[in-house]
Amino acid sequence: METSVKNKAQLLLEQYKKIRKHSESICGPLQTEDYVVQPIEDVSPPKWHLGHTTWFFETFILIPYFEGYLEFNPQYNFVFNSYYETVGARVVRTDRGNLSRPSVSDIYAYRSYVDEQMEKYLTKAVLSDEIYAVLELGLNHEQQHQELLLTDIKYILGHNPLFPLYEADDIGVQFNLASDLQDNLDFIEMSEGIYEIGFSGAGFSFDNESGRHKKYLEAYQIAASPVTNAEYFEFMQDRGYEDFRHWHSEGWDWVKQHQARSPLYWHFTDGDWGYYKLSGFQSINWSEAVCHVNFYEASAFASWKGMRLPLEEEWEAASSLFGWGERWEWTNSAYLPYPRYSKASGAIGEYNGKFMVNQMVLRGSSIATPKGHSRSSYRNFFHPRHQWQFSGIRLVK
Amino acid sequence: METSVKNKAQLLLEQYKKIRKHSESICGPLQTEDYVVQPIEDVSPPKWHLGHTTWFFETFILIPYFEGYLEFNPQYNFVFNSYYETVGARVVRTDRGNLSRPSVSDIYAYRSYVDEQMEKYLTKAVLSDEIYAVLELGLNHEQQHQELLLTDIKYILGHNPLFPLYEADDIGVQFNLASDLQDNLDFIEMSEGIYEIGFSGAGFSFDNESGRHKKYLEAYQIAASPVTNAEYFEFMQDRGYEDFRHWHSEGWDWVKQHQARSPLYWHFTDGDWGYYKLSGFQSINWSEAVCHVNFYEASAFASWKGMRLPLEEEWEAASSLFGWGERWEWTNSAYLPYPRYSKASGAIGEYNGKFMVNQMVLRGSSIATPKGHSRSSYRNFFHPRHQWQFSGIRLVK
Amino acid sequence: METSVKNKAQLLLEQYKKIRKHSESICGPLQTEDYVVQPIEDVSPPKWHLGHTTWFFETFILIPYFEGYLEFNPQYNFVFNSYYETVGARVVRTDRGNLSRPSVSDIYAYRSYVDEQMEKYLTKAVLSDEIYAVLELGLNHEQQHQELLLTDIKYILGHNPLFPLYEADDIGVQFNLASDLQDNLDFIEMSEGIYEIGFSGAGFSFDNESGRHKKYLEAYQIAASPVTNAEYFEFMQDRGYEDFRHWHSEGWDWVKQHQARSPLYWHFTDGDWGYYKLSGFQSINWSEAVCHVNFYEASAFASWKGMRLPLEEEWEAASSLFGWGERWEWTNSAYLPYPRYSKASGAIGEYNGKFMVNQMVLRGSSIATPKGHSRSSYRNFFHPRHQWQFSGIRLVK
Amino acid sequence: METSVKNKAQLLLEQYKKIRKHSESICGPLQTEDYVVQPIEDVSPPKWHLGHTTWFFETFILIPYFEGYLEFNPQYNFVFNSYYETVGARVVRTDRGNLSRPSVSDIYAYRSYVDEQMEKYLTKAVLSDEIYAVLELGLNHEQQHQELLLTDIKYILGHNPLFPLYEADDIGVQFNLASDLQDNLDFIEMSEGIYEIGFSGAGFSFDNESGRHKKYLEAYQIAASPVTNAEYFEFMQDRGYEDFRHWHSEGWDWVKQHQARSPLYWHFTDGDWGYYKLSGFQSINWSEAVCHVNFYEASAFASWKGMRLPLEEEWEAASSLFGWGERWEWTNSAYLPYPRYSKASGAIGEYNGKFMVNQMVLRGSSIATPKGHSRSSYRNFFHPRHQWQFSGIRLVK
Repeated sequence: METSVKNKAQLLLEQYKKIRKHSESICGPLQTEDYVVQPIEDVSPPKWHLGHTTWFFETFILIPYFEGYLEFNPQYNFVFNSYYETVGARVVRTDRGNLSRPSVSDIYAYRSYVDEQMEKYLTKAVLSDEIYAVLELGLNHEQQHQELLLTDIKYILGHNPLFPLYEADDIGVQFNLASDLQDNLDFIEMSEGIYEIGFSGAGFSFDNESGRHKKYLEAYQIAASPVTNAEYFEFMQDRGYEDFRHWHSEGWDWVKQHQARSPLYWHFTDGDWGYYKLSGFQSINWSEAVCHVNFYEASAFASWKGMRLPLEEEWEAASSLFGWGERWEWTNSAYLPYPRYSKASGAIGEYNGKFMVNQMVLRGSSIATPKGHSRSSYRNFFHPRHQWQFSGIRLVK
Repeated sequence: METSVKNKAQLLLEQYKKIRKHSESICGPLQTEDYVVQPIEDVSPPKWHLGHTTWFFETFILIPYFEGYLEFNPQYNFVFNSYYETVGARVVRTDRGNLSRPSVSDIYAYRSYVDEQMEKYLTKAVLSDEIYAVLELGLNHEQQHQELLLTDIKYILGHNPLFPLYEADDIGVQFNLASDLQDNLDFIEMSEGIYEIGFSGAGFSFDNESGRHKKYLEAYQIAASPVTNAEYFEFMQDRGYEDFRHWHSEGWDWVKQHQARSPLYWHFTDGDWGYYKLSGFQSINWSEAVCHVNFYEASAFASWKGMRLPLEEEWEAASSLFGWGERWEWTNSAYLPYPRYSKASGAIGEYNGKFMVNQMVLRGSSIATPKGHSRSSYRNFFHPRHQWQFSGIRLVK
Repeated sequence: METSVKNKAQLLLEQYKKIRKHSESICGPLQTEDYVVQPIEDVSPPKWHLGHTTWFFETFILIPYFEGYLEFNPQYNFVFNSYYETVGARVVRTDRGNLSRPSVSDIYAYRSYVDEQMEKYLTKAVLSDEIYAVLELGLNHEQQHQELLLTDIKYILGHNPLFPLYEADDIGVQFNLASDLQDNLDFIEMSEGIYEIGFSGAGFSFDNESGRHKKYLEAYQIAASPVTNAEYFEFMQDRGYEDFRHWHSEGWDWVKQHQARSPLYWHFTDGDWGYYKLSGFQSINWSEAVCHVNFYEASAFASWKGMRLPLEEEWEAASSLFGWGERWEWTNSAYLPYPRYSKASGAIGEYNGKFMVNQMVLRGSSIATPKGHSRSSYRNFFHPRHQWQFSGIRLVK
Repeated sequence: METSVKNKAQLLLEQYKKIRKHSESICGPLQTEDYVVQPIEDVSPPKWHLGHTTWFFETFILIPYFEGYLEFNPQYNFVFNSYYETVGARVVRTDRGNLSRPSVSDIYAYRSYVDEQMEKYLTKAVLSDEIYAVLELGLNHEQQHQELLLTDIKYILGHNPLFPLYEADDIGVQFNLASDLQDNLDFIEMSEGIYEIGFSGAGFSFDNESGRHKKYLEAYQIAASPVTNAEYFEFMQDRGYEDFRHWHSEGWDWVKQHQARSPLYWHFTDGDWGYYKLSGFQSINWSEAVCHVNFYEASAFASWKGMRLPLEEEWEAASSLFGWGERWEWTNSAYLPYPRYSKASGAIGEYNGKFMVNQMVLRGSSIATPKGHSRSSYRNFFHPRHQWQFSGIRLVK
């Protein structure tokens, strides 16, 4: 019915405004210069995130569907396309940090313009299912970049010799934290059998979590809480970074090449360990969940403990029984398609499928994940070497 | 009972002699210079293979178990250790091709010496289960290197501008070929349900295929035959190497970096496609199974066909219903541990487990696999970029 | 005498103020973001230049000589030290573009602070010869960075896909241009004999141009004017970039690696050649002196012409007879010490001597050289591959 | 006159035979495998040297001048062309060590064939001046490769963990050693003035040493003997490798990157310094001239001594007054053309000119230089980083 469809568009518009605003509020504490730099290939300049998420709406909604829409600047497609080969040439990822223009204020103007146009469009449009799906994807896409904004800002400030502050208080409070932590249990027993895996129910989900399917799992026990800094520090103290037996061959190469001996952002200074957090350089909080470890480290820690990392299906099957949401949790599952998975056609089809090789799945969400952007079927994925996400460890035995 | 145990040792000795001799017969057609070079990191010099497989028996059998054994040359541990961190320092993989010494005749002398000692040892020894297991592993290890010898020799000769001949006839005849090819069927129907996966029965198997376990599979159809050169050529003709939509993101990078446009060893010369085979440079045999494609190519081809690669469990569950053995067949399964997998302790524990990240599983075997070294539960694995194995494609829909 | 010494300090102070202000005026047209990026290793972020030149005065004047001076920020030594190993650890050159802090306004505050302190110091100080020399060096150092500021700004803006404008008019007018161009002569005849080479007279000079000495030169003819864009374009049209015979072996490698076919900033678009200048992207001015060629290109062009580049001594001996100052002119002289050259002790000794290998000398100055910072004995030097300076060609036969 | 011309050809033939035989005798102690490997880009496989020097005569004499000559194998041009772009495609330098074929015996057959044909040709030919010049160049070219054969063999054997012996006695005895060593003098005084520099007289010389010209030199004192191992060791003991003040900026980068702390081939084992020589690993002979230092090391040593390296003209002007011939002696002169230098036309023109950038001149000759292949005007040249030549140090003050 027409009316309900319009309401749907209005609801979406409210969500749109809220989400778009949140991206900008994340950048609130930044100085203009902080928006520009790209210290490593994986980290994008904050201004690029702001432009790229805007480009998504312009390219996939306004240009194809909003009649008479005038592009803000035709050259922006080249600058802000991330990896969509379908949509033309693009700035190579490693070059993003070389671009001083468009300036930060140009990009905020771009956001304003696109937001105004989107508002016009959404107040008038009768949304087909297809457009609605793209819109929802765009909003979830922006939320993904909100988390990346935080991880990238942390990397930029945390690798500056002056260790600038992002905010006085830790971000922990303002993000969703699981509340039903079962402190009385160490490990949760799960019995052998067939489990249903994959997204079900209403609401948005990515294509990579669809295709609900059966998975036969053997009995396992999964930790009720993530590994803490104190536990991880025992591994460090026991020379875990020097004992090749616990490491994958590639992980061992990584350790030697980077002379790794701690999670990212940890520094040993003046006889003590501290770490950079968004609230500044400080002493380690030992009871906090360990953060910024990569898959190699997570896996080596588990081996040292005589345990292992969960499969993503084990994690999902048990996820209602433990608290999660502080750290993305490395699983021992490679990122591969679920049964019946097939790529959407067109540029949107490039969203997930083409990354399904040489990455490991992380489950849960983190203190940097925007509210409402987590669910137990969510499949995050990164290359095993990456430390810069808010990633931690949950053990299985 | 003593007697049967002795017989077991004698049987093993016969097997030992046969397998050891076969490695040398593979090198029969080589000139001394061919034993020495290492054109890329993944390819080892043939003389290194001959030494390394010998070092295995010396290090894991003779030194620990044969009382009074005198090492052939204590420095060889450094030269021939491949990746066993437990056993001390080793020549970096990329440096193997820089070592002119030990000479080929030194290495044959080393083989003779170790073979004599092994014969002495095996005729006298009462083998414990543990020693027996290491011996079997050593023989299977040498068989794995026999296949690598052939793939590496092919790479060395096939990348020489003079295209030297390895042998007049193709190796096809002397190796095992599946005989029960079901030519009348295109695709084999497999029904949904729980399948038992992993090695069962008597005889040798690697630790990575143990841990027989249940896997829930949805219904699928698997091709009765591997993809042929003719079929793959259609993909090439249809500009498959220029259409990013079929490629993983990493695969597309690989295509562009290497300007790939055909399987390895194919060359377009004088207006026609030919390829280097061990029997020399020649015209393409179009009805032959396509060979020397990597995972990216296999996967792109499947996407172009509107199909996909099998999971390793799908392959195994159906493997008694189709012929296999010509090509290692890429699956869409990452190389990960089976349930209950745990690394053996000591150096032998480094055999498989530490490679379980960023590799894809191949199933079956190839014309280069030694007789008796294939079974349907066998899990071969390589990085997705590797083309130099005798690897091909089987489709699933 | 005291008085004259004081006057000397006052004079210096005026000069100091003027030069310091000029650095900032060069940055006038920049947006904050432009100060931050470092697209290639050789190009430093403008804010780094502003900080580094300030650090020079703080480190070599204020800290050692101004009693009671309070450092602005002790961490800045780490950030702004360019290459003085004597003065402690420093940010690796390739990392300069990763630092968003200190911010641009922090750095301007740093400049103000140091400038105030310098004014206080200079109005009171009785300058020893040693201090005076360091001060003069600091001013000349800042002038060198003024030219680098312009070349680096041009690189940053000229490699941005949006081609931002730096200023409406070309900088040509505001910089010194030789006025006595001998248009009636093509080549100036110079006779064989002994010439005196090196700085003489009063005023500042760098240590690398001192050590006036005799050089025996054979007769030569040197062009009265630099090579124009039109002349260079003939070389391009004649496929000069495809004819290895004109190139050094290293130069030929450079051509192939970079697929070079024109000077830096030239683009062939819409059927015509244009170039990026600080006044924007525009058509080639054919009568202008060619700019942004590296030594390999200069040398290949000369070879194609059947001529050669001058020796630096040939250039200097004839320099009063032709106009110069538009382009730094590549010579065929390697950057090596003059007779009796010896490094000063301490950090200042690192200024020139340690770069005297694998660089070629350029003579003259360019439209980007600040007024009063050029003389005929001046020895500029860059690696043969560098194009990003305002460098051109003068022929000798 | 005809007769004398014929005699000239006969003389040349005798020389040809002697020189060609000497190349093979240098390889006498090698095992087949030693001919094949290329541990670093700069080192060529010995079999490549044997083929390449043969290819020179085939390509520049037999093919153009010997009517009816049948090429041995047309593909060899591709394999053995070193850098002559004029003569077509060639194997990239870094790939030489990947080629197992042509085999060593193929290459000896190639040598025999070309030698027979050259003998036929030379017994009949009436040699024009042009051909005579190419022939002489070919012989001197082969002599240059004789020295490279020795340096490359030393590198190959000296970097093998087994340290194989090349020959029982050091090569010192069989090569020319200067006999007029002025032991009673430490430094030789040279007075200021004009010196004539460059080749003069009869006999062969390379084009890069022609163009005899005047050079004005200031007074200098040049050491009568090269620096010894004992003297160099003092520099090492005084932490010369840790004191950046003595190093060029590039040299200091080299030290840090390679963690250099001694000349090449030196090893500190069992509490003592030893080095690999062609006669095996042994204790340092302290009174011997230091060997296998690169330009950076030579220059840093001189700086530490408070002295400097000679200019090439200083070396040449004084060369009749001191003994030389043990070590190639680094000068502080960049490799640049002499006045009036011009490249020959055709492939021969690529011999020297195109390398005249980013290399430093070495003067003298070494124990590895073939007899009759040294003269005081000889200009050898290598990149400053190279240690693997028999290079040493002579001081100037």
